[in-house]
Amino acid sequence: MAKDLSITILMDFYGEMLTKKRFDVMDMYYNGDLSLAEIGEEVGVSRQGVHDTIKRGEQQLIEFEEKLGLAKRFLDISSYIKEANKVIDTMPESAQKDTLRRLTQNILEII
Amino acid sequence: MAKDLSITILMDFYGEMLTKKRFDVMDMYYNGDLSLAEIGEEVGVSRQGVHDTIKRGEQQLIEFEEKLGLAKRFLDISSYIKEANKVIDTMPESAQKDTLRRLTQNILEII
Repeated sequence: MAKDLSITILMDFYGEMLTKKRFDVMDMYYNGDLSLAEIGEEVGVSRQGVHDTIKRGEQQLIEFEEKLGLAKRFLDISSYIKEANKVIDTMPESAQKDTLRRLTQNILEII
Repeated sequence: MAKDLSITILMDFYGEMLTKKRFDVMDMYYNGDLSLAEIGEEVGVSRQGVHDTIKRGEQQLIEFEEKLGLAKRFLDISSYIKEANKVIDTMPESAQKDTLRRLTQNILEII
């Protein structure tokens, strides 16, 4: 089964909404890079059981994003901030430049 | 019962996660400004039933925010952007100023 990179992002946003067991399995798969068989051994279920848990978790994360759209909103903000930083870089040194730099930095840290 | 303004904000962020019935009752209360009795008449349940539905919904919204913290993150971003706009206002007219203005505007529209 192919790992969907965007699922990793959705895990960051909505992972807390999953049950602990489901979160742990998905975390091992997406962030720990373990195979289905390895995870199965770890948590004591079949390879197929791990596969089903991951599929259900993915579906749940996708539904959260369909309903809330927060990941997309954060990613859009992030891309505007990066664009702003490029413009700020071209400004001559000034107190304004320093303040804008600090503010965009603060925003990127929140995201 | 006192209306909590921050619940209105959480409704904007997480309202879609509530059941339709619960959302409708909370929407009438928080956004439509109807009384418990009026809502009860509208949906055909007792005043106490409406009260309980709202309390459960509030609890659910607060739990979403405790888990995800997305409302607070958006509000923080919004306040940094407003601070940035004040700085941008003090800049002399330039292509950079126009671009930064457009980018902060785009971000505020997402939030």
